[in-house]
Parts: sequence; structure tokens; C-alpha cells
Amino acid sequence: MSKTQRYSSSTGPKPSFDPKNLPTGWQNYAIGGGAAFAVAVFLFSGKKSTERKELTPEDKFSKFTKPFDDGSSKKSAPAVATPITPIVEDDNSKPMRDKMAVFVRKMQKQIADAVDALEIESLWQAAKELGTEPKLCVRDEWIRAEGGKGLSCVLMDGNVFEKAGVLVSVVHGPASAALIKQMRARGKDGVLEESGVYKMFAAGCSMVIHPHNPNAPTAHLNYRYLELVKEGEEKPVAAWFGGGCDLTPSYLFEEDAIHFHQVIKDVCDAHDKEYYPKFKKWCDDYFYIPHRNEARGVGGIFFDDLVSENIYIFRKFIEKLSSQERGDHNEIFKFVQQCGLSFVDQYIPIMKKRWNTPFTPEMKQWQQLRRGRYVEFNLVHDRGTKFGLATPGARIESIMCSLPLTARWEYMHFPEEGSREAELVKVLKTPKDWAV
Amino acid sequence: MSKTQRYSSSTGPKPSFDPKNLPTGWQNYAIGGGAAFAVAVFLFSGKKSTERKELTPEDKFSKFTKPFDDGSSKKSAPAVATPITPIVEDDNSKPMRDKMAVFVRKMQKQIADAVDALEIESLWQAAKELGTEPKLCVRDEWIRAEGGKGLSCVLMDGNVFEKAGVLVSVVHGPASAALIKQMRARGKDGVLEESGVYKMFAAGCSMVIHPHNPNAPTAHLNYRYLELVKEGEEKPVAAWFGGGCDLTPSYLFEEDAIHFHQVIKDVCDAHDKEYYPKFKKWCDDYFYIPHRNEARGVGGIFFDDLVSENIYIFRKFIEKLSSQERGDHNEIFKFVQQCGLSFVDQYIPIMKKRWNTPFTPEMKQWQQLRRGRYVEFNLVHDRGTKFGLATPGARIESIMCSLPLTARWEYMHFPEEGSREAELVKVLKTPKDWAV
Repeated sequence: MSKTQRYSSSTGPKPSFDPKNLPTGWQNYAIGGGAAFAVAVFLFSGKKSTERKELTPEDKFSKFTKPFDDGSSKKSAPAVATPITPIVEDDNSKPMRDKMAVFVRKMQKQIADAVDALEIESLWQAAKELGTEPKLCVRDEWIRAEGGKGLSCVLMDGNVFEKAGVLVSVVHGPASAALIKQMRARGKDGVLEESGVYKMFAAGCSMVIHPHNPNAPTAHLNYRYLELVKEGEEKPVAAWFGGGCDLTPSYLFEEDAIHFHQVIKDVCDAHDKEYYPKFKKWCDDYFYIPHRNEARGVGGIFFDDLVSENIYIFRKFIEKLSSQERGDHNEIFKFVQQCGLSFVDQYIPIMKKRWNTPFTPEMKQWQQLRRGRYVEFNLVHDRGTKFGLATPGARIESIMCSLPLTARWEYMHFPEEGSREAELVKVLKTPKDWAV
Repeated sequence: MSKTQRYSSSTGPKPSFDPKNLPTGWQNYAIGGGAAFAVAVFLFSGKKSTERKELTPEDKFSKFTKPFDDGSSKKSAPAVATPITPIVEDDNSKPMRDKMAVFVRKMQKQIADAVDALEIESLWQAAKELGTEPKLCVRDEWIRAEGGKGLSCVLMDGNVFEKAGVLVSVVHGPASAALIKQMRARGKDGVLEESGVYKMFAAGCSMVIHPHNPNAPTAHLNYRYLELVKEGEEKPVAAWFGGGCDLTPSYLFEEDAIHFHQVIKDVCDAHDKEYYPKFKKWCDDYFYIPHRNEARGVGGIFFDDLVSENIYIFRKFIEKLSSQERGDHNEIFKFVQQCGLSFVDQYIPIMKKRWNTPFTPEMKQWQQLRRGRYVEFNLVHDRGTKFGLATPGARIESIMCSLPLTARWEYMHFPEEGSREAELVKVLKTPKDWAV
């Protein structure tokens, strides 16, 4: 498998970020990183506007160039504006919580805009001829009673996507007994005093995208930063990054799996050659459905407890990081940023190849059965979902947003030997090395 | 609410049981109760025939009278034959495991036949005019490597039913560490020696029926008998019954909930006036989805650890049973039999009223969302599912058979105030007393 199988990014949107192009209300996030406490970043300057400003049909189709023709768009394309240039993230004088809070919103916007752009692109002809309007991601904001808030961008039953949810949450408050228990179980005993009272801070962006076309794969992403602070203190006793991305096809296109893995491997390799092999295996191990004896999909990367040495080393393998990275929290943050911002390059080129390819009703039915497996993993095994459901006051709509719009369960359905369906299952039972 | 709201059973099929009317292969079950060990009951006399004998279209429509017109069927109706008369179940000289093994098959057949009969009835006109053939329950048999076997009756995508699964399993073998741990957690420490090695025996029938029509409710049933026997001994150290039935509508018809509850209340009352209130509340408590803050449905009954005094009293409330019942295992078995055999009376009259009433696409969509909640309960909370998924070698196809054929999840879907959908949710948040 040669590296040339990675899709050229020249077919993708040409991002050009200018905070002035952000919709009303969003500029705050791009420039609000100086707030003393991270949650302040998410206070709209007095406004309770939670819906994106309604676009007129003319807006929708005149302000966006057709972005995927040849990559030579002349007009600026705010729907796919990609804030590559960091604003506050490079400022090492700012607390990490503030920088991560700003970053997850930037990542969210980049992905939601790419989803919107594909919906628009897919209706380009119909829109010109029939005046059809695309469905775009709907934003809604929520506030957590115990502290913090979040912003969800969700598209349902679009032309390309069955369901796409890109969720940001930046929350803080007392660390619940359940959270502390989970932290102890994960090896953070060393920094948690028996009688200590702790506060937590968490900023993350999580995303699940389920396309309509059974040839097009589902994608998942999650990048998060957590802190535990002892009551009355300022400096966290523990702070770490976690996250990853993975791909779940209903039909296997090897070149899609290779492309998805190759993009993220390149990001990993630029930081440490040991990252990708470790995080790829971690992903295969995590997204495994024991009761079905198969992986959820063709994987990607997964990591947790990624920390710098000056806080605490939780996992053995962290010790193998270069001393530079172990000593520098900002270096890990840079890695997480580059992972998050590379998702559009990982996934959108695949979608552009697959969203409109022909399929049969039988293929759609197979996709629905695979959706059923996705639901099984998320509800039975996913640690995040389990933890969320067990947490009083957790936002159930956000937790369940990862589930597909539709799913199906048939009794005793086994694909015919030698079929394309059986080919997928075979790969799910024996993870492959996709990237070179 | 008067008792007259219970639907008259005269509109239902008139059962008349004769073992000679059973399909080939089934007679073994009706007469095989004398086997020394229960699993022997399930050995087909040398045959590996697992499929019901294929009926010709003429068979399908000439051998069945149209059963639901006026209840005055002249011909015998094997498809709805209801083996009310016990064959071996009354013989107190037989071990309970043998009697229960025979009974669960009888119950399974009664329900599967009623499901088939409704599919046939629903296509009566079409069949006469167009020669359409109904889909009937497909039987498949499985063998458990560690000991025992099962028979599944499953219908998918019929005319009336989206999915109907009636599953019997009669299994035995070494009691796993997980099972023993669960038994200890449930208070059976008193009879389990620290270093003891135990065998288990379990016979049960479980059923979930999901109809197509959103006006028609989903129904669930499970009745089971378990034994723990110390290695090398004959007499069980613990033996108990568990089970129940419950109804899950997408749209509330109060008279349906009343009828379903009234039938099972009458069965309970005939044994002990304290049964129904206790078991009704137990059901409301058990089929509750904490993360949605609502019940799965409008309830029914649920009980567990139902035992006679001479074995072991596990639960406080059992002590309140009359001394006659506490001293007589057979009395409890009779109660379980009457519960199981009354299901057809509980549910089929409701189905006959609802399966063909008009509905809109919006109603179908609401039903699909309710199916999603059903999946959430079963995968996240149901103890049986959790235990099954955690058990190595468990039969995954049987465990997942309870899931609907199709389900749906929408982000932030809340029914409009005052709507029929909101009316259902209101009742699910505050369980009602349905029976008088």
C-alpha cells in the first residue's frame, strides 16, 4: 500500500480563516481566550441567541462558492472557513483550560462547516434548478446548572448525512464521587488525597457523523482536556488530554481506510514515531464489541491520560515519550490540536467520493444492521456513554446524540460467504494495518 | 374503572388442545416429561428437524378457520390450540425441572400459534383473493455446548408484527463464577458454601412482540425456573421462579392498559390478594429508565426469587405469603403456569382491536422513537441482557432477539404539549393503577 493512496487534499475545501467571517456570536469564542476562568469564554456578551442566524436561500447559494469542483474557488467560503491559524492557542501565558476551551470551539466550527458545505454541494444542481434548500447544522446552546455550558451543532436527515452531531462542552464544578472513583480506578490515586475535596474542569469536542449512503462510512471523533484541582488551590493536581478518531464503514473500501489512517499517522509521526502504532492499537482494543467478537469499525487512533511529566505520569507508555514532550504540556496540546484539525482532511475526501454512489435497498438494509451494532457498542460498552448515563444531571440529549437516526436488528442474520458484507465482517474480526 | 372494561375473551380463539394435533416433532415435548433429566425432554427422537413442516397455501388457509370473526369457529384450529390441560405438570412425583421444561414449551407454542393466527387472520381477505401467503413463526433449535438446548420461534416483518420472538431455553451445567457471584449479591449466601462447586439448571420462556401499527403496543413476557445443585448431590440447595409480563404502547389507550392488567390481576388474586399489588409495583420499579426519567411502558407484573419455604426464603415479602404457598413449591408452579398461559388473553384481544387501525407517517415515526427507548432500556439497564452479554458462550442471537426490527433516535425531540405523544410520556413518568 503506497502513500499515494492518500487522497489529495487539493480536492478539498481551501480554508481561509478570518474571525470576521464567523457568524454573529461566534467571534466571542475566537477572541475570548483571555477570560480569567474558562467558562467565561462561553458567555455570549449578554445574548441568549442559540440559533444560527437564518440564511435566505440566496445567502445559501450565492455566498458559498461550489467548493469541491476543482479546489480553485475564487470567492471566500465562510461555510468551510478553517481556522488553522491559532489565535490564543499559541500564547503560553494563558491557562491550558482557556486555550483548550477556545480550541474545541474552533474544531467544532471547522467540522460543522465542512458538513454544511457538503450538504450544500450535494444540492447544488437541485438548488439552482428547483430552489431546493439544504438543511444545515442547527446550533443549540445549553447551560450546566453545576457550572459551565456547551454548544451543539446537529444536522438530521440532510441530503448527504442521516445524522451529524458536533458537540462542544466546557464544564466545571465539584468533582462527583463517581468521577473521583473512576479516576482512582485509572491510577490517579497517587495525586488524590483520601479526604481531599476536588473540583474538575473539562473541555471537549465530540462528533459522530452517520451518512445516508451505505458506501459512505460513519466517523467518530473526540478530543478532550481534563483537570482536577484541590479545593482552595489554583494549580491542578492532575491534568491530561484524551481522544481519538475512528471510521466505521458498512462496506469496506480499503483505500478509504488507508486514507483515513494515513492522514492521522502523518500527524502522529510529526510528533513521535511511537504515537501512531500505540494509539492505533489502543483504538482497535477500545472499539471492540466482545459480545459480537468484532471491532466496531476499521479503527483510527485512541489515547487517554496524555500528560506532561511535571504533572503526573499515569500510564507506563507515556514514559516512552521523548523528554521534550514529557516536559511540555503545550507540546501535547499542539498534538491534540493538529489531530482535531486534521479530521476534515481525514473524512471529507472520503465522503466526496462515496456520498452519491449507487446502492441497492439490500445495501441500505445491511447499513441499518451495522447501525444496530454501533448502538450496541455505544450503549453496552462505551465508557464515556456509561459514565454519562450514570452521572446525575448529565445531559442525556448530548450523550444519545452519537446514536444513528435509524437502526435495525434481525434475528440470525449472517452475510453470505464471499459477499461484500462478509468481507467487512472478516476485517472487523482481524484488525489490519492500514497506514504505511 | 369497572371490571367490564376487560375485553371479553369470547372474541378470542376457542382453544381445544389435543396433542395429536401438534405438528410433527412437537408431540415429543407434550409427552416426554418422564425423562430422568430435563434436557432429555428436548432431544428429538433421533431427528435433527428444526424447521416447522412447510405448509402448502391450501394448508394455511383451509386448515385454519377464520378465528376472530365471532368466536363461533366450527372447525378445530390447531394454529391457536391452547394446551390448557396440563399433561405432566400436575404429576407431583415428577421433578420440577422436568415439569417446567415441558411447561415452557407449551407456553411457547400457545403464544407462537396465536401470533401465527393473527398473521393469517390479517391476510384472510388478501389470501383468498390474491393468494398472498402469510409469514409464520420460524422455529430454530440450538444446542448449548455446556449442556442443554433451546428452541426459538421468531417472525420478522410479518403483516401484523414487525418482530415477534418467543424463545425457550432449558440449560444446565456448571454454575459459572459470574452466576454464583450474582446469586450471592442477591442474598443466596446462606445456602452457598464458600468452597462449594455448584451446577445450575434453568428453564424459561421469554418473549417480545413488536407490532407494526403504532396504535398497537409492544408486549414482553418472561417466566423462568432456576435451580442450584451442589456437585455430587441430587436435591437443589436453592430453587426459585421468576418472571412477569408488561406492555409498552407508543400511544396510550387506557382500556388496553386496564385489560392487560386486569387479566393478570385476576390470575394473581386467585392465588394471593397480595401478589398483584406487590408484583405490579415491582414491575414499575424494574422497567424504569433512570436516564430518561420515565418507565419503559405501562407495566404489568414482575417477580423474582419466588420459592417455597422448605428450600429457602430469599426475600422479606415472601414471608408474607400464606403458609400453604410457602410450603408448597407446586402451588407456586401453578401460579407461574396460569400467568404464562393467560398471556394470550392479555394481549391478543388488544392486538385484534389495534393492528389495523389507521395511522399517519408521523405516528410511525413516534413509534420508532419509542422503539429507541426500548433499545436503551434493554441494552443499558435490563439485568438479564447485561448478565447474558457478560456470560462467555451466551447465545447472542437470543439475547438480542428482544430488540425491535427498527428503531430511531432524534436529537432534542420533545412531543408538543397536549399532544397524544405527550400524554403517553406523562403516564410513563407517573405510573398509574390500571386494574381494580
